[in-house]
Amino acid sequence: MLEELKERVYRANMLLPAHGLVTFTWGNVSEIDREAGIFAIKPSGVDYDKLRPEDMVLMDLQGHKVEGRYNPSSDTATHIELYKAFPKIGGVVHTHSSWATSWAQAGRGIPCYGTTHADYMYGEIPCVRNLTKAEIQEAYEKNTGLSIVEYFAGKDYGAMPAVLCKNHGPFTWGKDGAEAVHNAVVLEEVAKMAARAERLNPQIQPAPQAMQDKHYYRKHGANAYYGQAT
Amino acid sequence: MLEELKERVYRANMLLPAHGLVTFTWGNVSEIDREAGIFAIKPSGVDYDKLRPEDMVLMDLQGHKVEGRYNPSSDTATHIELYKAFPKIGGVVHTHSSWATSWAQAGRGIPCYGTTHADYMYGEIPCVRNLTKAEIQEAYEKNTGLSIVEYFAGKDYGAMPAVLCKNHGPFTWGKDGAEAVHNAVVLEEVAKMAARAERLNPQIQPAPQAMQDKHYYRKHGANAYYGQAT
Amino acid sequence: MLEELKERVYRANMLLPAHGLVTFTWGNVSEIDREAGIFAIKPSGVDYDKLRPEDMVLMDLQGHKVEGRYNPSSDTATHIELYKAFPKIGGVVHTHSSWATSWAQAGRGIPCYGTTHADYMYGEIPCVRNLTKAEIQEAYEKNTGLSIVEYFAGKDYGAMPAVLCKNHGPFTWGKDGAEAVHNAVVLEEVAKMAARAERLNPQIQPAPQAMQDKHYYRKHGANAYYGQAT
Amino acid sequence: MLEELKERVYRANMLLPAHGLVTFTWGNVSEIDREAGIFAIKPSGVDYDKLRPEDMVLMDLQGHKVEGRYNPSSDTATHIELYKAFPKIGGVVHTHSSWATSWAQAGRGIPCYGTTHADYMYGEIPCVRNLTKAEIQEAYEKNTGLSIVEYFAGKDYGAMPAVLCKNHGPFTWGKDGAEAVHNAVVLEEVAKMAARAERLNPQIQPAPQAMQDKHYYRKHGANAYYGQAT
Repeated sequence: MLEELKERVYRANMLLPAHGLVTFTWGNVSEIDREAGIFAIKPSGVDYDKLRPEDMVLMDLQGHKVEGRYNPSSDTATHIELYKAFPKIGGVVHTHSSWATSWAQAGRGIPCYGTTHADYMYGEIPCVRNLTKAEIQEAYEKNTGLSIVEYFAGKDYGAMPAVLCKNHGPFTWGKDGAEAVHNAVVLEEVAKMAARAERLNPQIQPAPQAMQDKHYYRKHGANAYYGQAT
Repeated sequence: MLEELKERVYRANMLLPAHGLVTFTWGNVSEIDREAGIFAIKPSGVDYDKLRPEDMVLMDLQGHKVEGRYNPSSDTATHIELYKAFPKIGGVVHTHSSWATSWAQAGRGIPCYGTTHADYMYGEIPCVRNLTKAEIQEAYEKNTGLSIVEYFAGKDYGAMPAVLCKNHGPFTWGKDGAEAVHNAVVLEEVAKMAARAERLNPQIQPAPQAMQDKHYYRKHGANAYYGQAT
Repeated sequence: MLEELKERVYRANMLLPAHGLVTFTWGNVSEIDREAGIFAIKPSGVDYDKLRPEDMVLMDLQGHKVEGRYNPSSDTATHIELYKAFPKIGGVVHTHSSWATSWAQAGRGIPCYGTTHADYMYGEIPCVRNLTKAEIQEAYEKNTGLSIVEYFAGKDYGAMPAVLCKNHGPFTWGKDGAEAVHNAVVLEEVAKMAARAERLNPQIQPAPQAMQDKHYYRKHGANAYYGQAT
Repeated sequence: MLEELKERVYRANMLLPAHGLVTFTWGNVSEIDREAGIFAIKPSGVDYDKLRPEDMVLMDLQGHKVEGRYNPSSDTATHIELYKAFPKIGGVVHTHSSWATSWAQAGRGIPCYGTTHADYMYGEIPCVRNLTKAEIQEAYEKNTGLSIVEYFAGKDYGAMPAVLCKNHGPFTWGKDGAEAVHNAVVLEEVAKMAARAERLNPQIQPAPQAMQDKHYYRKHGANAYYGQAT
């Protein structure tokens, strides 16, 4: 089973360069086996074109390495906090994809300007706060995760599978690693079109709420009718 | 004959990713056999790299599935309204292509700033209104089509084979699916250059009318002289 | 000899899609044999992926077709005026390349903001005026050429091998078709960087004249020292 | 040994087109053998697709050609000044990459807006002054190098391996040619995201200092923990 997990996480990681979301090693995907309480994650700083399934690192949610000859991604502690706080997610992605990172550097959430956004993410994609100096120095990666968890307190992390960390970049999640990558691609596309739309119309407003509801719920929930019954 | 139609619609659909107009499954092409009163359309949510000619769904203009193991595109009802109201068109395309969608999200039509635009589309590419909450909830996709038809009342849909739906994205049409895709490519290119031109000159004006006329009519109508006699 | 000319013009035309300068058939290259007084040019509206050397059309400077089964490019009359007025050029290119066309649509010349520009083109790349309604209706393509020639009266067309036609797009030239294509690539790159530089600094000024001189003349003229002696 | 150096410099040069950093011949990489006091550099104006390892030119730090049938890059004198003033560097790169050159043309340094930047470069990437007319006319390329050296007087060139020359373009360096190319790729990506971030938020501020420190020092220096121990 864990071999299969490593294979899946390897393939999900390889989707990042395939979709143009990473330069060099600036991204990582993990996926968790909830029963085993173990997740597989990309090793830190290893080139995508040299990556192999057996290079994936197995970790538990206490941050102990279970298996693997490499160090795990330097962002591992962030992944752990997301898995601990968001029990329904099975995969996490971090990238420095260009448009999403530009919004993060601007310190702005991405308003829902259209149906492309509403098809996947319900409402504004949030940009969470900078860490304090103490939070950075004590446990930077763990506190990055906690700042995301703090924002989502009382909110539906299932309806908003993406977040921007101010001056840093995006994290996305999903039911598994592949879905988290899918959401990372959507985020990048939505970030690009929102930036361009704002320049075309400085008085731009978010899409009407009824339209956002329609598109989100035709793809999600009990009354969804997009795609094929599965 | 219908096998040929499905093959043609399949090939037209595959042109969308080839021209970089779609991410994932965010687009669809249909083409109609006017004599049979039946059109073929992409199935909903099926990946382009798994699509086969036999997957195309055959529909009639009353919205009944004539043949096919899949559900048709969720935008099928929009295609139907366009075929019903625009008797001379044979193909319809919907995408979320990046630049055209950015204009739609900005809620703006695309002025004719140059000959690239005028070669294919006569005048400003319109951005049609948002649906009301009632229209959205009652029959969203059908009413999307009707909002386009409403705009074109008394206008020449042949001289303007493209439209933007506010906060959503573009639809294009043509004599068949391939020409509708061709117009979708032109729209994206024109949308990109118009956005850039506006940033270079905030006082920009549309191209002189005589120039728009010259370029449109050297490619269209009885006095066209572009290309080869066919 | 003319077979060789057609082969050369064919290859120069194929460089346009290779460099990403054309969508569909939106571009053309010609090259002239000055001794024979005959030039070869792309046929009108023929797809690049179906183009063959033998499809090139041979024309004389009076606008008569000398050989070829196709109609020549609809812009042929513009090429003729450039060959007649600029005796030292051997090749002409027209495209609708995205950034150069955006400047043309904005109705602005491209200031020389840096050495990339100065390495090839001396001073601001001009944007020539719109034609009058009468000029458009009488002989659009010929008068387009004459409007360029009018601008260059008393100027050195050798030191500025590119021009933008307002609301239309760029023409470039060179000692042969390949060099004219080379200049079209430079123009597109320069147009892109100038647009971005203006957004980064609204108070931007052209590069210092001494710097423009240095870069232009280290590549051109008697004291050039860039590249290899040939 | 020098054969190996030429092979390495050849491969580093070929990374420039692979990463989309050069158009035509607009870039060059060199790498120095400090013991021999000799560096290898790309020949001037030779196309990348015709370049071979044996075409690299060997030069000493006095500017004498040690070996090679070609002229060295016209920017050789700039490389020499960098090698002389920055004793710890082993490779130098010059390009006209689009986004970095746009900042150079705008005459602006690139503020550190996020962790992508801070992971590699500590603080604002500087844009150094224009040369005077006398400096340009006397020894343009050498004085370009000296203007960079002038800026870095008393600063840590190891923590800032990139610079923009006003109205010209970027130079980067590193422990060898490959690392200098790596930094050129990072610079281009950072330049792109900074430009976009500024447009998204005109009141944008640099990333908090504690965050810049954290990211720079988790990858550099005695306490670095990114990647694999080597």
